Amino acid sequence: MALIIRPALPSDVPQILAFIRALAVYEREPDAVLATEADLLEHGFGEAPYYTCLIAEQDGAPAGFALYFYDYSTWLGRPGLYLEDLFVFPEHRGAGIGKALLQRLAQIALEKGCARMKWEVLDWNSPAIDFYNAMGAEIQKEWLNVRLSGDALRRLADLGNVVETTEAP
Amino acid sequence: MALIIRPALPSDVPQILAFIRALAVYEREPDAVLATEADLLEHGFGEAPYYTCLIAEQDGAPAGFALYFYDYSTWLGRPGLYLEDLFVFPEHRGAGIGKALLQRLAQIALEKGCARMKWEVLDWNSPAIDFYNAMGAEIQKEWLNVRLSGDALRRLADLGNVVETTEAP
Repeated sequence: MALIIRPALPSDVPQILAFIRALAVYEREPDAVLATEADLLEHGFGEAPYYTCLIAEQDGAPAGFALYFYDYSTWLGRPGLYLEDLFVFPEHRGAGIGKALLQRLAQIALEKGCARMKWEVLDWNSPAIDFYNAMGAEIQKEWLNVRLSGDALRRLADLGNVVETTEAP
Repeated sequence: MALIIRPALPSDVPQILAFIRALAVYEREPDAVLATEADLLEHGFGEAPYYTCLIAEQDGAPAGFALYFYDYSTWLGRPGLYLEDLFVFPEHRGAGIGKALLQRLAQIALEKGCARMKWEVLDWNSPAIDFYNAMGAEIQKEWLNVRLSGDALRRLADLGNVVETTEAP
């Protein structure tokens, strides 16, 4: 068995999109993926990338991926590694590939001086929750996620300017 | 009344730390702030900053702040604006400063091509939850936050390497 975990290259973009689509099917949102190869190429491999990606290959075949970026803890005064997507194709599960990806992410987090790793899990995904608990992760039920998008985001932005502002950096 | 919202400067770092500490008191974790001015200076104003910060000033006095960075939606193929901290000093509340900060963030999000804004709220903070609901935000109770830090993070990183890896970018 030859398992390799390596940073994604621009030529991996079609494969990354295939992983994202497969993950969306698993998360019961098969039609939610609007991202294109051009989006992923621009945002992950441009001058100021928004994300970084690892690819797991089993005997030369793409088996899984992890896509992440950095957040920041103002309490700890240190960056954190935020894991947006982690996925292993069903036919490659049970071989420790998900754990190997998480292990490599933990190493990268420590190398970069991060205080922690964070990610989200669906509340019905008991196998994943058990897996994360077993490695000592905390499920933080007190903190709820809030999202503002679409028309509500535009409405908020379009309120009459009641204050002076200067340009954002 | 003169309310100004402006990007933070390196000289604002002591004030940013004061905001962070006041927010931690409000969140019932007064001893949780380990960040130093040196941390905040390095991570917010260096070559590749981990965060960006807005300051709200009321009649020339610091009244509130918003600290944020960018995340990435693999479903939408677009960055998002992640609001880590939002705080207005108690004596300045009720004057629309929190809303003005959120409005400016929404404008920045749209200017940067973000698909959405995200943040977290404590489940007991009903006034904040009502405020966010009123502006059309969704509270996503299905997604739980997972955090791995400290010894558990180091344990995961230190597992014997079972795979070949190449350098992370």
